[in-house]
Amino acid sequence: MKAEIITIGDEILIGQIVDSNSAWIADQLTQLGIKVHQISSISDNEAHILTALSEAESRADLVIMTGGLGPTKDDITKHTLCKYFDSELVVNQEVHDDIEQFMKTRGIRFNTQNIKQAEVPDNCTVIRNYNGTASGMWFERNGCVFFSMPGVPFEMKEMVSVSLIPKIKEHFELPIIVQKTIMTHGLPESMLAELISDWEENLSENVKLAYLPSPEHVRLRLSIRGNDKKKLVAIIEKEELKLHKIIGKAIFGVSPDTLQSAVGELLRKSNKTLCTAESCTGGNIARQITSISGSSVYFKGSLIAYSNEAKEEILKINKQTMIDHGAVSQQTVEEMAKAALNMFQTDYAIAVSGIAGPDGGSSEKPVGTTWIAVASRDKIESKKYVFGQRRDINIRRASAKSLDKLRKFILEI
Amino acid sequence: MKAEIITIGDEILIGQIVDSNSAWIADQLTQLGIKVHQISSISDNEAHILTALSEAESRADLVIMTGGLGPTKDDITKHTLCKYFDSELVVNQEVHDDIEQFMKTRGIRFNTQNIKQAEVPDNCTVIRNYNGTASGMWFERNGCVFFSMPGVPFEMKEMVSVSLIPKIKEHFELPIIVQKTIMTHGLPESMLAELISDWEENLSENVKLAYLPSPEHVRLRLSIRGNDKKKLVAIIEKEELKLHKIIGKAIFGVSPDTLQSAVGELLRKSNKTLCTAESCTGGNIARQITSISGSSVYFKGSLIAYSNEAKEEILKINKQTMIDHGAVSQQTVEEMAKAALNMFQTDYAIAVSGIAGPDGGSSEKPVGTTWIAVASRDKIESKKYVFGQRRDINIRRASAKSLDKLRKFILEI
Repeated sequence: MKAEIITIGDEILIGQIVDSNSAWIADQLTQLGIKVHQISSISDNEAHILTALSEAESRADLVIMTGGLGPTKDDITKHTLCKYFDSELVVNQEVHDDIEQFMKTRGIRFNTQNIKQAEVPDNCTVIRNYNGTASGMWFERNGCVFFSMPGVPFEMKEMVSVSLIPKIKEHFELPIIVQKTIMTHGLPESMLAELISDWEENLSENVKLAYLPSPEHVRLRLSIRGNDKKKLVAIIEKEELKLHKIIGKAIFGVSPDTLQSAVGELLRKSNKTLCTAESCTGGNIARQITSISGSSVYFKGSLIAYSNEAKEEILKINKQTMIDHGAVSQQTVEEMAKAALNMFQTDYAIAVSGIAGPDGGSSEKPVGTTWIAVASRDKIESKKYVFGQRRDINIRRASAKSLDKLRKFILEI
Repeated sequence: MKAEIITIGDEILIGQIVDSNSAWIADQLTQLGIKVHQISSISDNEAHILTALSEAESRADLVIMTGGLGPTKDDITKHTLCKYFDSELVVNQEVHDDIEQFMKTRGIRFNTQNIKQAEVPDNCTVIRNYNGTASGMWFERNGCVFFSMPGVPFEMKEMVSVSLIPKIKEHFELPIIVQKTIMTHGLPESMLAELISDWEENLSENVKLAYLPSPEHVRLRLSIRGNDKKKLVAIIEKEELKLHKIIGKAIFGVSPDTLQSAVGELLRKSNKTLCTAESCTGGNIARQITSISGSSVYFKGSLIAYSNEAKEEILKINKQTMIDHGAVSQQTVEEMAKAALNMFQTDYAIAVSGIAGPDGGSSEKPVGTTWIAVASRDKIESKKYVFGQRRDINIRRASAKSLDKLRKFILEI
């Protein structure tokens, strides 16, 4: 079964807002086992809406539209739907009363604009909107279902959850879909692809694999559809197990896990604490760690020593160490980690010093050169990385690499 | 002139990621005076890509595609483009050398997957990618231009800014559009709208205004199109001047300025230095400040005191102060600011302590309660804010408010 999503309104087409509604709806449909075939954003224009509807009808069993249902002149979706489905607008008394009540509780006078909002095409099934004045409208034609609803996110979301999903489940016979996204760090996409190519070749029939890379990680999404949920879950789990045998060290969790949540869980479980001493990452590691609610249990704080004076005066890094080896060196970063452990009295510390760029590089230490150390009370590990030219990406890579290094350090892998 | 954007890849269709690329590209095209007619998200499927291309070609002068250019099996865009444009894949030596170099600097072995990335259709113009391995490809047919590029946001954005926009300007005859986006902080959208309503009513003919709100700021975008660039610039500047007279204090710059760049400029010009002492923002303020290249001139560092022990032991906040008033209080945040000034020996300090949520709130200090202090050697100002329920938004608001408070503190406004 295929669905299409059409968003109507100029604000997306001029780049004023990001279309997050479609992603949310697509996720809901995917979880129902419905394949979203296409998402289209189009303008508030009758001819354009009619074409988009007819194209979608030719391809899909379910067409979901958002937007263009406000009371103003540029909102023409309802009139266009009347044209498409050969119907007429009539006042729906239930909707009329809903809106009257809605206005009353907000102390707003019920006016002609509101009465217009109570008009719906005479051949649709109305889905009530308890958070606004635009109704949802369900049409059926030639076996295809069309559903139109407002684009205001919270109105849309409640309508989908409360009314649309149950109605879809009732109307269509749906397959079952099982999905799992494996989170990896440390192997670039091409190397990963090479390592797991045999496994990929021999994937159980129907299991689909997708690579989703970012500077922080490469996600591997496994999905399968069928009728027997238990069996599908078992197939995915079997494949996941095989994958662990090949690239286990690189796997830090399954979506929605992040490196910071994975590290946080390790610390929480073992009752250990962490701090960071950051230079080139400028607080980004601390920010990521503290983005997680409850991180104060294991995260004690960070010293961001952005200047050499801060490294000397506050972290008490030996001045001679920096003169002899530079601020971006194994010696300095190891001293930073040890100093942070003492300063914050934690079990673990991360320290980073690098040249984020675009300035500050040299032939010996080009932009992107970054030393990372992870330390506990009795052990320290450090390594040099050379990332790229872009400051923001270097900071993101150094942060992710630091968290992954700590993860492996704790797990001793 | 009309454009269409096509994003290729299942991750949008299953709702795994929000398509922010299209909004960004649409914004760039709109600024060039190009009307985006439709945005379509489609799957990694040959037939689907071919249909979408042909539909877009029938409606638009420019078709921009992102995605499906990775080295893995599910990335089929390049092969499909060959089919659509009746061409063959050939190794491009320049691209080959780029990728080899790219891999070398990262210490990654050049493998067969990489060689595949160096193959491009023989009838396209290659646009180099300096941040990844997938090239941009420019095709022309029947007066329509097609451009395909990777979907990785930072690769895509640099390609568009550096190569695509100049090439579009060269190829098409575009109207002149003058745009200026005024950056404001501190006035919520509704209040701003009320304050500037008279000015808005009397805007010069053809000047369009758009409000673009976010947790950090409200942007006011003024735009005008015509033929005489000098005249258009003069009209926009006149309107900008009028706006400054009404809401001058709230304006911190014009796009692409940010609060951190505005504060950075003030510090740089006056040869002053800054540090932060952060609790609930967890390093986010430091991260924003250091996201700017060259910030090491004025930013010395930060102490992220996420635990009370760190506040006591490292920042030397009086234990009694925290017992009497709590860690989220005027007394504590002012002590934090003073301590940071001494610790980092800077001219200014920002200190923040709050309850980011979702836990930790009380009836007296609900989630979102945040104390912010800004201090110099001889002056200190502090204020309480109550933001909302969402942890991530509270952190963003507290960070922006801190930077704006420092801006006004330095400017004495």
